[in-house]
Amino acid sequence: METYKFDKSMELFNRARAVIPGGIYGHLSPAVLVPGKYPYYAQRGEGGYYWDPDGNRYIDWMCGYGPMILGYNHPKVEAAVDEQRKNADCFNHPTPVMVELAELLVDTVKIADWAIFAKNGSDTTTYAVQVARQSTGRDKVIACKGAYHGAHAWCTPGHGGLTDADRVNVLMSEWNNLELFRKLVDEHPNQVAAIILTPYHHPAFADSVLPAPGFYEGIRSLCDRNGIVLIIDDVRAGFRLDLRGSDQYFGFDADILCFSKALGNTYPISACVGRDDLRLSASDVFFTGSFWGGGISMAAAIATIKELKETNAVAHMMHIGKLLQDGIRETGAKHGYEMSVTGPPTIPYASFACERDFMRQQVFCAEVTARGAFFHPHHNWFISAAHTEADVEHTLAACDEAFAIVKEKFND
Amino acid sequence: METYKFDKSMELFNRARAVIPGGIYGHLSPAVLVPGKYPYYAQRGEGGYYWDPDGNRYIDWMCGYGPMILGYNHPKVEAAVDEQRKNADCFNHPTPVMVELAELLVDTVKIADWAIFAKNGSDTTTYAVQVARQSTGRDKVIACKGAYHGAHAWCTPGHGGLTDADRVNVLMSEWNNLELFRKLVDEHPNQVAAIILTPYHHPAFADSVLPAPGFYEGIRSLCDRNGIVLIIDDVRAGFRLDLRGSDQYFGFDADILCFSKALGNTYPISACVGRDDLRLSASDVFFTGSFWGGGISMAAAIATIKELKETNAVAHMMHIGKLLQDGIRETGAKHGYEMSVTGPPTIPYASFACERDFMRQQVFCAEVTARGAFFHPHHNWFISAAHTEADVEHTLAACDEAFAIVKEKFND
Repeated sequence: METYKFDKSMELFNRARAVIPGGIYGHLSPAVLVPGKYPYYAQRGEGGYYWDPDGNRYIDWMCGYGPMILGYNHPKVEAAVDEQRKNADCFNHPTPVMVELAELLVDTVKIADWAIFAKNGSDTTTYAVQVARQSTGRDKVIACKGAYHGAHAWCTPGHGGLTDADRVNVLMSEWNNLELFRKLVDEHPNQVAAIILTPYHHPAFADSVLPAPGFYEGIRSLCDRNGIVLIIDDVRAGFRLDLRGSDQYFGFDADILCFSKALGNTYPISACVGRDDLRLSASDVFFTGSFWGGGISMAAAIATIKELKETNAVAHMMHIGKLLQDGIRETGAKHGYEMSVTGPPTIPYASFACERDFMRQQVFCAEVTARGAFFHPHHNWFISAAHTEADVEHTLAACDEAFAIVKEKFND
Repeated sequence: METYKFDKSMELFNRARAVIPGGIYGHLSPAVLVPGKYPYYAQRGEGGYYWDPDGNRYIDWMCGYGPMILGYNHPKVEAAVDEQRKNADCFNHPTPVMVELAELLVDTVKIADWAIFAKNGSDTTTYAVQVARQSTGRDKVIACKGAYHGAHAWCTPGHGGLTDADRVNVLMSEWNNLELFRKLVDEHPNQVAAIILTPYHHPAFADSVLPAPGFYEGIRSLCDRNGIVLIIDDVRAGFRLDLRGSDQYFGFDADILCFSKALGNTYPISACVGRDDLRLSASDVFFTGSFWGGGISMAAAIATIKELKETNAVAHMMHIGKLLQDGIRETGAKHGYEMSVTGPPTIPYASFACERDFMRQQVFCAEVTARGAFFHPHHNWFISAAHTEADVEHTLAACDEAFAIVKEKFND
């Protein structure tokens, strides 16, 4: 296969460095990919593909880090946006679509008796913790090491600009370590307002880990016995495992669920939903933003959820993801590599079982990407409903070449 | 004049109360207006007007609490959005318009050597404080009582779900009280990272207050002498006083400016800009959100800023705002009322000088609103470039009727 060059990306990046700190920041920073080996900008998208400014096309296995779930420029979502745009977006009041979207979420998500909307995932995870505090009259929250709940000070993976006070009420536990959760609750009697978890463990720079048998049974029971609110941060996994909520995929009921990313098929929106007994506390926490009543993203979200339901999209994404996971495992084996394939099929990740330093992984993912299938070396990937079996085939052919390059380069 | 009814608003609100905590939350809550006397939903907007679900038309003197500055559905902004939408919004990377917008802001805003983008005003005020902390190695920030810097825990005007730790590093001063600022800095030597101020004082449930002569000279000098970063939260006033930044309108230079609201003419975007010596610290603070690289709102912002420049929109808005301010003062006087008319002409507010309990104010604003000109009783208003002299005339005719009603009702 011919491989890609990124000259126009680099030109833009050099302009950007003069006027933006670091040029590109946050999760989009090229520093979290392999600098120089990846595109830095996106020009346009269509279905399961996007093009960079150099004209290179990618099968988008990252889906914009999750927000794209039905495909870029999906006709039904865009039609709903067209319709709402005739009215304009953001007013002195919400628009009627806000009521419709809340009704749809309450109807769709099992534990949801109410819904409330914002713009960032972080807005909702922070809010969920505050609602738990308001409801319990307690301050502490237990989270897992390595879990990502957003970029607010209490949970950011960054280090700059923080103070000691930011995390004084955050207790750190470990994924699947039920004993440690129990110990922390025991050590802080009547002080723990919430346990916040992602539905499974999907840290960056590491493999994904599913819940161990009995883990959620134990967590649910620990919360019930101690009056603790169980918050599931479904920002990343939401709508890719079970439209009723990722808690249902793993067989338990959360008290609060946080959604964002896939909810509006790239349009900016987040949502927090919860059980009836938290409704009053939810309205006691002041929660607002200038654009949160805007109708365009809500119209996009209504169209997205309806289309996901009507097309049984999760089943299709599971099928495609399974093909990709199995294919990578088999192609790796053909070259003598055991691949650690983790995460649910719709949010897969694959890495080299023989290393923890990402050296082979970085070469492998960059070579696959330069052949038109975007693989992030250090972060789980995402499947969309627009992806096809042909996309998997093209990707596995690229993997085949990339494994051969890794093998030669590392003398394996 | 015929007055309005709100039956369809109430129907929607009753549906909403079943599925959304409080029905409508945050700054859009009808509880901050006069419940029952105002529309609760917006159906559509065009230019300086919007219509509620009952078909009532309003001259929108709130501009969606600020985001609308050129008029709803402005042709040039919508054309830019159309163009960007062909490409889709949110990807694995930023789009080229991010570089263009950063260059435009650095070119437009006097103190800006760099720019960085997010979705909420709160995102940028919190980030600005973190950048100041990172740069100074200090924890404390001084803010003013009654100032609104967003809904994050360190600054929210709400009470629910907070902990004592949230504000342990926030020292409260008072607007225009230079002595108190100096005292707080003296009492916390080498501990104050930032002073954060709105360019003038625009609290809710109170009149606006401009900076006293010498106030900003004193603040700037206090910051310089003590190595404190001066953050101006221009989220509300930005682009309505001076396109170079509201610090320039009041004759001083900030170190960091926060923008949002008007920046994208209702499309959701916020920005933080700063001086070169803060650039490294700015890139040391992890700052990200799922949709922050999205091109649509950035394309809207580029079109908005260019149109504001090309049409000299601030001058037109100042003219309209001045007509409205003078007209309210004169119409009030005709009925024997002294009106307290405060704020810059483009962000005006008027209240009854004879009361502090808002009793007349609520009746007055509701009666004007029910005659087709939206007046918020407890929050400053906003002028847009789409507003006309005819809009002011209609509004003053409504004021004339409303003052008469107040006079009769209160036996004044």
